[in-house]
Amino acid sequence: MKTYSIVLLLCLLTPYLGNAQENFIFKKAYDLKVLGRVSEDTSHFQRIDSADLQNLPPAVQRYAKFSAGMNVVFKTDSKSIKIHWKLKKMNTLWNMPSVAVNGIDLYGWNGQEWQYISSGRPNSEDNQMIMVENLDGKMRNYRIFLPIYAEVKDLEIGVLEKTTLSPPDTALVPSSKIAIYGSSITQGIAASRPGMAYPSILSRRLDFDFINLGFSGSGKMELPIADLLAKIPAQLYILDCVPNTLPEQVKDRAYPLITRLRMLKPEIPIIMVESVKREISNWNSAMYTRVNGQNDEYRKTFDKLVAEGYQNIYYISTSELMGDDHEATVDGTHLTDLGFMRISKTIERYIKDSIAPLQ
Amino acid sequence: MKTYSIVLLLCLLTPYLGNAQENFIFKKAYDLKVLGRVSEDTSHFQRIDSADLQNLPPAVQRYAKFSAGMNVVFKTDSKSIKIHWKLKKMNTLWNMPSVAVNGIDLYGWNGQEWQYISSGRPNSEDNQMIMVENLDGKMRNYRIFLPIYAEVKDLEIGVLEKTTLSPPDTALVPSSKIAIYGSSITQGIAASRPGMAYPSILSRRLDFDFINLGFSGSGKMELPIADLLAKIPAQLYILDCVPNTLPEQVKDRAYPLITRLRMLKPEIPIIMVESVKREISNWNSAMYTRVNGQNDEYRKTFDKLVAEGYQNIYYISTSELMGDDHEATVDGTHLTDLGFMRISKTIERYIKDSIAPLQ
Repeated sequence: MKTYSIVLLLCLLTPYLGNAQENFIFKKAYDLKVLGRVSEDTSHFQRIDSADLQNLPPAVQRYAKFSAGMNVVFKTDSKSIKIHWKLKKMNTLWNMPSVAVNGIDLYGWNGQEWQYISSGRPNSEDNQMIMVENLDGKMRNYRIFLPIYAEVKDLEIGVLEKTTLSPPDTALVPSSKIAIYGSSITQGIAASRPGMAYPSILSRRLDFDFINLGFSGSGKMELPIADLLAKIPAQLYILDCVPNTLPEQVKDRAYPLITRLRMLKPEIPIIMVESVKREISNWNSAMYTRVNGQNDEYRKTFDKLVAEGYQNIYYISTSELMGDDHEATVDGTHLTDLGFMRISKTIERYIKDSIAPLQ
Repeated sequence: MKTYSIVLLLCLLTPYLGNAQENFIFKKAYDLKVLGRVSEDTSHFQRIDSADLQNLPPAVQRYAKFSAGMNVVFKTDSKSIKIHWKLKKMNTLWNMPSVAVNGIDLYGWNGQEWQYISSGRPNSEDNQMIMVENLDGKMRNYRIFLPIYAEVKDLEIGVLEKTTLSPPDTALVPSSKIAIYGSSITQGIAASRPGMAYPSILSRRLDFDFINLGFSGSGKMELPIADLLAKIPAQLYILDCVPNTLPEQVKDRAYPLITRLRMLKPEIPIIMVESVKREISNWNSAMYTRVNGQNDEYRKTFDKLVAEGYQNIYYISTSELMGDDHEATVDGTHLTDLGFMRISKTIERYIKDSIAPLQ
């Protein structure tokens, strides 16, 4: 009884390391189904293939290698699932847990929705962890979400000997894509774990492959991003790229960006998302004036596009994004899971409205 | 214009360091109003004074020195507020941001409620940060929340020369206390920042001084905690101490704990809170059996107390705590801000119901 107690105690408050005696057979994750990449014909775990990065700013080129929004879907009847993931480097952010920066999340399809199972704790550049055991052994579909702020060098899924590990049921593989272009908030800073970045929440709730093109400190509406976006065969583009773009940059860049994207993709709806309102601007009068200028310029761009007859362009105001209790961020700027759940629900509604006329 | 752009850019995505030329006058925080401590007659920033720790388990003695739930209230007409906080040691958790472990939060009274202003980023054991500037210079009340998982050695509030810094308006100092005894979840792992632990959320929403007696990996219903709880002149006791207590421990300890507390405090209501349901138990059949036993034993204790005629004891089921989307935790066990907001709303309702008959 003593031993039982100690084992349970360890289970409760430390990550679950599982039974070391079991033998796992590993398969490379890119032999299963990898979602969330611009280019699918690659074995790299980076959002944008290096060949497509040439005309983009240096920061975007660097962050594009981080696996934000990428996820792997598979099915197995194994009673235990182990993940082996290697990072180029463990990164650290002051406003985000290491498990979101460097770790992984496991979800399972419960017959109706993707349900959270467990999180993979990062300890070093080379991590192995039994994510779950004592499953019932039925064939089920699973999905893992990759690190938000680290570069994944290798990723393997392990299942018990004499069980099956294969690509997922085709019904659970989205046939259409949605691309979201934005800042660190889009990338997923400061989610608590990889699956809680808002594009990843949406990817579980809606039948689309979401391509996360959020870049920390970047996403500044440079014109070449229009060509990259157009390269993605998306059913919808979401432009959440105001937070790092100065008011005069929004004024100069938003209209060329959107009209070029519209020229390259005449039929595809576009959702423009204002910047979340920074909490400090409610107190610091100088910040209030500066920050509001960004959204003002974005709104003017939208009004101009509408006045010129552009159609299928939707606009989400900052007032709809974060709730009204001022508690949705970790630092006044970056949404926590509380904020990400709120922004997800709003954007989900707009996605449905913008896609509906086409279906 | 170039300089302006660079300044704005730095403001947007780095912590706001403010204007170095301003001269700040500092005052020790314990000369203002410190809330969240069992013993008020001390200049230490620890929840339980060392003299009161003797009969408690070693882990509780250790964690009691962490400033979880402690907060300082003051008023000033300064246009800038700077905080200087010294830690014994910077700590690291894999499932929680450093700003929640080691940092601070600033809130301001907006006339109706405590509203978030900014977070203090921890960089070392000795941190100074301008939390806000360009305030309007009106006399206002402010409140800072201290680190959840670190020991604060010293804390000073700085305001600009020729301005006032003093204890807060008496109307904003609660005259009654609520004590919450529990696990790491009560302590506040894995809030995104100090103010988002659920006892701290409640302390802003309700006019009580909340004493956070949550202890990571502990809170196992040892009998001496009843005497410590009874020492606090509380209007309500909340017992959220199931998560780390094994089923057989709950069976052995819950009844003696609660009946002793009731004997020492015959009139004070008690709210018993079940453990949050661990997400892994929905998948791992062995964990399901083990974890459910904890709440089953707690419920049996409640039923026994009711059958024996004990009154003013309230009970919150696990089904009311986390929502039903399985997204409220960082690791299957520890609530994120999303989960903390949900559990706060439920417990707030029970607090109002249990206090109402006495008022």
